[in-house]
Amino acid sequence: MGERVEAFRRLGGQPNRFKESGNLVFERFAELYPVAYEEGTLSTKTKELLALAISIVRDCEDCITYHLIRLRELEATRDELYELFALTLVVGGSTVIPTLRRSAAFAEELEEDARQGAETQT
Amino acid sequence: MGERVEAFRRLGGQPNRFKESGNLVFERFAELYPVAYEEGTLSTKTKELLALAISIVRDCEDCITYHLIRLRELEATRDELYELFALTLVVGGSTVIPTLRRSAAFAEELEEDARQGAETQT
Amino acid sequence: MGERVEAFRRLGGQPNRFKESGNLVFERFAELYPVAYEEGTLSTKTKELLALAISIVRDCEDCITYHLIRLRELEATRDELYELFALTLVVGGSTVIPTLRRSAAFAEELEEDARQGAETQT
Amino acid sequence: MGERVEAFRRLGGQPNRFKESGNLVFERFAELYPVAYEEGTLSTKTKELLALAISIVRDCEDCITYHLIRLRELEATRDELYELFALTLVVGGSTVIPTLRRSAAFAEELEEDARQGAETQT
Amino acid sequence: MGERVEAFRRLGGQPNRFKESGNLVFERFAELYPVAYEEGTLSTKTKELLALAISIVRDCEDCITYHLIRLRELEATRDELYELFALTLVVGGSTVIPTLRRSAAFAEELEEDARQGAETQT
Amino acid sequence: MGERVEAFRRLGGQPNRFKESGNLVFERFAELYPVAYEEGTLSTKTKELLALAISIVRDCEDCITYHLIRLRELEATRDELYELFALTLVVGGSTVIPTLRRSAAFAEELEEDARQGAETQT
Repeated sequence: MGERVEAFRRLGGQPNRFKESGNLVFERFAELYPVAYEEGTLSTKTKELLALAISIVRDCEDCITYHLIRLRELEATRDELYELFALTLVVGGSTVIPTLRRSAAFAEELEEDARQGAETQT
Repeated sequence: MGERVEAFRRLGGQPNRFKESGNLVFERFAELYPVAYEEGTLSTKTKELLALAISIVRDCEDCITYHLIRLRELEATRDELYELFALTLVVGGSTVIPTLRRSAAFAEELEEDARQGAETQT
Repeated sequence: MGERVEAFRRLGGQPNRFKESGNLVFERFAELYPVAYEEGTLSTKTKELLALAISIVRDCEDCITYHLIRLRELEATRDELYELFALTLVVGGSTVIPTLRRSAAFAEELEEDARQGAETQT
Repeated sequence: MGERVEAFRRLGGQPNRFKESGNLVFERFAELYPVAYEEGTLSTKTKELLALAISIVRDCEDCITYHLIRLRELEATRDELYELFALTLVVGGSTVIPTLRRSAAFAEELEEDARQGAETQT
Repeated sequence: MGERVEAFRRLGGQPNRFKESGNLVFERFAELYPVAYEEGTLSTKTKELLALAISIVRDCEDCITYHLIRLRELEATRDELYELFALTLVVGGSTVIPTLRRSAAFAEELEEDARQGAETQT
Repeated sequence: MGERVEAFRRLGGQPNRFKESGNLVFERFAELYPVAYEEGTLSTKTKELLALAISIVRDCEDCITYHLIRLRELEATRDELYELFALTLVVGGSTVIPTLRRSAAFAEELEEDARQGAETQT
């Protein structure tokens, strides 16, 4: 498994302090969040693409990791991701380039993982 | 015609100082820009939605005007726009609410214009 | 009544398109929002001050209007607001100065309104 | 005199609430601010160009007005400004375009004012 | 001592290049900075909370480390911090979640350190 | 060679996924980019300083690395960089301080490298 996926899973394995805190805001936000991504007039995949674009422009590395994993599960192709990267470059400017590079490298890592997983199963 | 469309067109009617300046960067950027929105693995409509989401989060009012006009031409429905608005609210936070309100009001203005245009033609 | 308050109320008088849209995300967010400001270990006033500081740094003018009105209702004093403005200047940098100027002028408008209201009642 | 210059001067004509407030932070910041722009190893003009670029990317309209007026006084040429605009477009992305358009129009307004002033004097 | 505290102290142990540079701006800013946090109509603790909220939204990790250490010294409780985190989530949007998670983990690290320190003393 | 330079070079040694992707947007952007930095009415050095200031305010660490290397090649002095740092502090606010510290440390690393390189040659 790739290094960035592993780091992300380790993070996911931490105790969820917000949930355990009993603070109602976190609980409600956790309920609200998946509703925003539900299959609707826009598909879940399109919504994940939108969230990815915002995360790139806001430079939230862990958000990008999360949405790229989701998009992999939703079978977004490399070409789709690169067209999104190209658009965020034009709209967001050259300061997003390092983020795009890391994102493209991570997307490739995920592809590789998926390929190996598929081979293992057969 | 709605007030915000008119203001936008007035702006468009101004001399294009950048083009006239002979500065090569503006010329090249003007050529590059439409390429990023071309129909590809992602549709032009999806790309316009991505640009709209970024523009909302960066709070670029004139960018929003432009992309909403484009999305109207591409026949994006009200439900599609509202699902995008809902997503940017969750991802972008409550500081985008005033921008979303103005955007929704403007989208309605555009719908109204389109309806009247259609009636005039018949 | 001051001009900016009036403009804000006019906005509030508009149809609430998001509520009417039936989109569940807006409904849930509208329920979640007041929970975040509830009197708790931090007071509602402190939470409004936090929201004001974020709104200044993100340059969301209508958010600032809203939180200044709320803080007026919660009887935040001019000195408290100016200490907050001073802090956001140091933390946020000189690009927040124009926003701070408009905010201070608006806070004075609200004070004036409150004073006149109090005089009318006696 | 152009409209945007006038609006800016009107703003300048307002009472300086921060100075009058007696809050020490504003006083000290007001002393610190000009030091950052002093002629040094970098010229005042270069520093004003840097401040203008940041103001464009942070979309602070009144900051831009201020720095363009300063740069006019320092005799920055139209070509210099357009090269700066071109750079902020590439680094900052297409969301700065509306800001750049308004900035270029305002720079022209300032040029026009200067030309008329020069003619009046002769 | 926790890892993040250690890294922060190591950073603090570096030569203060700005102070040594003799550049007057850094010197004046260093004098101005503590004034903004002085006990006033707003308490130092409230001001630190404001600075923390801005740092979260601007995603400045080292700023967050600094303000969390300060808030620990000022005896801010876990509940107070979680209410602030909840508010920044609602106002700032889901892109702050990874930052909030790391901040909560670090706040716990600081609590643990304080507890052990207290035990050692008795 | 310093650690940060090495990390940067390693990144540069990665396959250029965007170029290889055949996506026309990346190709065109790669052509456009150097044009924005060409010696013109503003010097290449001034343009690199502008890009550095924007990168600091947008907190793009790899962008800063890149522009500091370029500015080293263009023989920008330590004093010039510190005056730029001082200005971005005043305009950008205290949240840029950690970024400035790392940038100053890296600039020193580059100076050191250059000095050793010069000694080796003689």
